[in-house]
Amino acid sequence: MRIAVDAMGGDQGVMVTVKGSIEAVKELGINIILVGNEEIIKNELSKYEYSGNNIEIISAEDIITNDEEPAMAVRRKKQSSMVMGLNLVKDKMADAFVSSGSTGALLAGGLLLVKRIKGVDRAALAIPYPTKKGVSLLLDAGANTDCKAKYLQQFAIMGSIYMEKILDTANPKVSLVNIGTEEGKGNELSKETYDLLKNTNVNFTGNIEARDIPEGDADVLICDGFVGNIILKLTEGLAMSIFSLLKEEFMSSFTSKIGALLLKSGLKKFKKRLDYTEYGGAPLLGIKGVVIKAHGSSDAKAIKNAIKQAKILVENKVIERIEDEVSFLGGNHDREERI
Amino acid sequence: MRIAVDAMGGDQGVMVTVKGSIEAVKELGINIILVGNEEIIKNELSKYEYSGNNIEIISAEDIITNDEEPAMAVRRKKQSSMVMGLNLVKDKMADAFVSSGSTGALLAGGLLLVKRIKGVDRAALAIPYPTKKGVSLLLDAGANTDCKAKYLQQFAIMGSIYMEKILDTANPKVSLVNIGTEEGKGNELSKETYDLLKNTNVNFTGNIEARDIPEGDADVLICDGFVGNIILKLTEGLAMSIFSLLKEEFMSSFTSKIGALLLKSGLKKFKKRLDYTEYGGAPLLGIKGVVIKAHGSSDAKAIKNAIKQAKILVENKVIERIEDEVSFLGGNHDREERI
Repeated sequence: MRIAVDAMGGDQGVMVTVKGSIEAVKELGINIILVGNEEIIKNELSKYEYSGNNIEIISAEDIITNDEEPAMAVRRKKQSSMVMGLNLVKDKMADAFVSSGSTGALLAGGLLLVKRIKGVDRAALAIPYPTKKGVSLLLDAGANTDCKAKYLQQFAIMGSIYMEKILDTANPKVSLVNIGTEEGKGNELSKETYDLLKNTNVNFTGNIEARDIPEGDADVLICDGFVGNIILKLTEGLAMSIFSLLKEEFMSSFTSKIGALLLKSGLKKFKKRLDYTEYGGAPLLGIKGVVIKAHGSSDAKAIKNAIKQAKILVENKVIERIEDEVSFLGGNHDREERI
Repeated sequence: MRIAVDAMGGDQGVMVTVKGSIEAVKELGINIILVGNEEIIKNELSKYEYSGNNIEIISAEDIITNDEEPAMAVRRKKQSSMVMGLNLVKDKMADAFVSSGSTGALLAGGLLLVKRIKGVDRAALAIPYPTKKGVSLLLDAGANTDCKAKYLQQFAIMGSIYMEKILDTANPKVSLVNIGTEEGKGNELSKETYDLLKNTNVNFTGNIEARDIPEGDADVLICDGFVGNIILKLTEGLAMSIFSLLKEEFMSSFTSKIGALLLKSGLKKFKKRLDYTEYGGAPLLGIKGVVIKAHGSSDAKAIKNAIKQAKILVENKVIERIEDEVSFLGGNHDREERI
């Protein structure tokens, strides 16, 4: 198996992508294609005295940055590590692509280059969301701001397959994020989606209120990309602000300082439990290839985990399974991408 | 000034509504009308040996519970404490009404009985949201699941007036909750609302991402009721789950237990800072009277604070100011309420 890795992506670039790739090669028995500036990559590889032939370099001159307009950048920067990596998947030269670069560009590129699966109206970004019980899969986490009920229905099918095959959850519980638990609650979109999900081949358990999301009773959380992104970002923001408030209280007196010291390892463990980078990358579901978005702040271990995740996706033929399931729905595929 | 209080509402009912009312009368120099079962209220008043004549009782036989369908309950239970209290405001027999009963019924009753201000298309529930810097006002927090841009524009005006007059914030910063900070980001609703807010007589500071909400840089947070409710409930859920995770870590070893003990007062203070019941009730903005929703779990102090808040709303003529500001917009008032 050959997995392409965007060597230039993420906050720490080659420093972590190269190290993560070396670890992946050793641990997973796969081949890696590092896409990016050849000289920089070779220099980084030499630090690890890596001499094996399981890592190949494909030279890419350009880099797409986080502040570029995604679709424009993908169209113009054909020599960027991201576009070249995605093209490797499209051309079946690689089985999967992992990038910690711009989320927007990866989404746009995935749609424009790798293209949607027949029957899928919209591709979704699926994020592993840490809960008290483990992890739920939240989708869409921001790829589609305005959704129709049938898109959400497709997200439910794709999320369900992913959760079952990749995160080993038998018969995953699919819940619709809503502002009340009873049927008939919510906005027009959620009412219509509820009706569709009742008659969809997933284990639909009804609505879930945002209050109950952290409990972890749902395996797959369905919502439009606007709401999904709000949930994701608010979770990040609250966790950060709660930690800074805690720190403030802990530093406020001599006894509390000692208390905090005694709690140090517990607090660290706790922080780790809330950190969603711990739970691997986010797959872009609905396109004709395996594409994983690793977190921008990924370290080498996170990169290695994202590669591992890509490997499991390929091994379990998740794309093919989505194709099969979605073909029953009869979605519209002839639409041009509007990005 | 006469403020009506729903004596029967909330998790703790008369136990806290009566006590809170007595405290309010003593502290604020106002008159209270307790609406509810006369016998139960009298019995409760006798416990405090209250003999003043600043508290009047208006007998209401019925109670609307949290699990009743709101609009139906309001239409049918004309002798309920909530309907009778709202009618006191409508008939100008009371200057304001405070209830910790069913949010849905209070919203429905506010619209059906007290009715919307001319020019206001939708009334909104405005929730004080605790942040690192103090408190922001979040609206709509759940009254309107599907919104048009002009409703959000009106929410911005109403929230701005409230924040300025009641929470003493000069020139309050109004931000649109969105999934990106730049203009042009978000869904159709947010793009259209952004355009409207640029040309509205409020201090519009642009989009705010959910990640930044807890920082407290915005004074007024504008969103539709679906998103607002998700934000509110997720905040509650996360705070609860973070506390339970912390507790778990703290109880995991002997040293951490001692650490937690030393931190006890700090943790308590911290928990209080996150508790939005500390920041008073939530006004229903856009109707022709002062109606405050106190939290269901209110204690006597929270009830007293909600009464105080109602008093300030009346004194500052907030309803009249909203009427003035909104009249410039030319909203549609001739629509029948659909509840």
